[in-house]
Amino acid sequence: MIDSVKQADTVIEYSYEEALDILKDEIDKILSASPKIIREYTMHLGKSFGKLMRAKSILICAENKQGFVLSNAVILANAIELLHLATLVHDDVIDKSDMRRGKVTLQKKYGNRIAVICGDYLLSVALKMVAAVSDKEKYLDKKIPDFVGNICLGELRQQINNGNYNLSVFQYLRIISGKTACMFKTAFYAGASLVEEDEIKIRKYAKIGHYLGMIFQLTDDCMDFETTETIAKKPVQSDYEKDVITLPLIHTFKVFENVREKAKIHILTRSEINKLVKKSGGLLYTRKLARKYYKKAIMLIQELEITEQKRERIVSLLDNAYRVF
Amino acid sequence: MIDSVKQADTVIEYSYEEALDILKDEIDKILSASPKIIREYTMHLGKSFGKLMRAKSILICAENKQGFVLSNAVILANAIELLHLATLVHDDVIDKSDMRRGKVTLQKKYGNRIAVICGDYLLSVALKMVAAVSDKEKYLDKKIPDFVGNICLGELRQQINNGNYNLSVFQYLRIISGKTACMFKTAFYAGASLVEEDEIKIRKYAKIGHYLGMIFQLTDDCMDFETTETIAKKPVQSDYEKDVITLPLIHTFKVFENVREKAKIHILTRSEINKLVKKSGGLLYTRKLARKYYKKAIMLIQELEITEQKRERIVSLLDNAYRVF
Repeated sequence: MIDSVKQADTVIEYSYEEALDILKDEIDKILSASPKIIREYTMHLGKSFGKLMRAKSILICAENKQGFVLSNAVILANAIELLHLATLVHDDVIDKSDMRRGKVTLQKKYGNRIAVICGDYLLSVALKMVAAVSDKEKYLDKKIPDFVGNICLGELRQQINNGNYNLSVFQYLRIISGKTACMFKTAFYAGASLVEEDEIKIRKYAKIGHYLGMIFQLTDDCMDFETTETIAKKPVQSDYEKDVITLPLIHTFKVFENVREKAKIHILTRSEINKLVKKSGGLLYTRKLARKYYKKAIMLIQELEITEQKRERIVSLLDNAYRVF
Repeated sequence: MIDSVKQADTVIEYSYEEALDILKDEIDKILSASPKIIREYTMHLGKSFGKLMRAKSILICAENKQGFVLSNAVILANAIELLHLATLVHDDVIDKSDMRRGKVTLQKKYGNRIAVICGDYLLSVALKMVAAVSDKEKYLDKKIPDFVGNICLGELRQQINNGNYNLSVFQYLRIISGKTACMFKTAFYAGASLVEEDEIKIRKYAKIGHYLGMIFQLTDDCMDFETTETIAKKPVQSDYEKDVITLPLIHTFKVFENVREKAKIHILTRSEINKLVKKSGGLLYTRKLARKYYKKAIMLIQELEITEQKRERIVSLLDNAYRVF
């Protein structure tokens, strides 16, 4: 982190690939410098971060006309992955998860206490990184905390509606718009604000980020009914088992009204629910909505005056979220 | 909060008393605008905030030579009380507290899930307020996240050492230096940075804030052995019952070696421990250390080139923390 703070004073330009490599190194460094008790777990989470989609969103959006990424973008990308990590650690407390990505969670190993504080600690490190960005664009400071608040509110709404088998499509979309899409929206906003002056343009990026997040979550919610535990490397329980109501299930309730009552009292097994969701067209319905967001995003991308390379990179993020190749 | 954000663009000057009144109003407004599910609890916490010592620290340190407080200081004071509130909400999760200040806690009423997210939400609101301060002094952005990190580390160390009956004086001081004193240090740093240019001077303020926090915690730790539940309005369990080892007890273990082993297996009642701590001189020893910090702080205050009124106000904060009149 010390390196990034130093770099913040002199802005350096990188190619996208260089920026990504530096980012990975930096994250490794930060996580191995974290307090001893959480180090093992944060390093593991860091390694299994997978696709770094939030960080990549920032780097790609921050690409300038010459095809370079400024060093400030690397710091922000770093910050957003740490913010994401913090939410994962708190999610484990919230969900009482024992396992994440094949590893025992912090809350299982050391209890809620340590996990809550570690999440807070990671949040503070993320905050420190945002603050270390030199020449902060005028919108950045005010918008990012707003977005973080929205992410919390999304999570809050999800918790309140846990076990609400009458959840409407509108309520569901509002929840995922906060808890997932807002993080991507933040990434796009932050990245774009490093290379664009005009707030209207920056807001277009933010909207694309929002769509990206919606696609990501809708696809994730479908996969929860399709994928087996071994492939997902996710907490052992499915959304249904955790009383989390998602769009494929909401649609199933509409098609087979009696399923709602049976699901509520959990007399259907996970495998039975999976079959019903498929049969009702719940997966198809959800994927179609994701497709709609995909098209909207593509249309907005056309409006941006950006290089072909940048356009392709943003589209590849959408493809990744959509996970149908 | 909208009001504060608006105010941030034009800096207004208040008398200290005016600033304090505005602050109280603003906190009320923010807490009554918080998400419905947490509103009742946050409003209650807000009302029972009591002495607002952290906020007052900022306002007092931000008093200029003409005896006025800038509107930015009110925003920062607001932020620090929200930050403090966030830590209280997370503390309730950590300590599994059922009651705080005579009211059922969020975690007891709605469970860990809601409490963790609400703490995060309050943190994000605090962050938003810091970001809303116009003309942020150059050190403020970088230092505040650092301090927040230290507060988390202090909490973390306390948790790790929960039930460590061999805790040394040094370890104990390190813990409270993080978990309590750092919040006051932050307040002093932030307040001073609004009126002082020279970082050496700002650091002097920060050190006084650190001493203030140490005095506050040492006194609190003494009171835990002295005060009955009804007076303290604190969680039902005492530090001893929660396995939290504080200085009066560490001293008692030194004087009566056999108490350590008995305390460890909890064969001594709360009332027996209270008597032993008094008898060993543990309270006197702790208060003497608080006195030492008090003197150090007074010496540093003499070095500041400030008005007599500002000096008196800072000293009255110290007197408040020391709680011996």
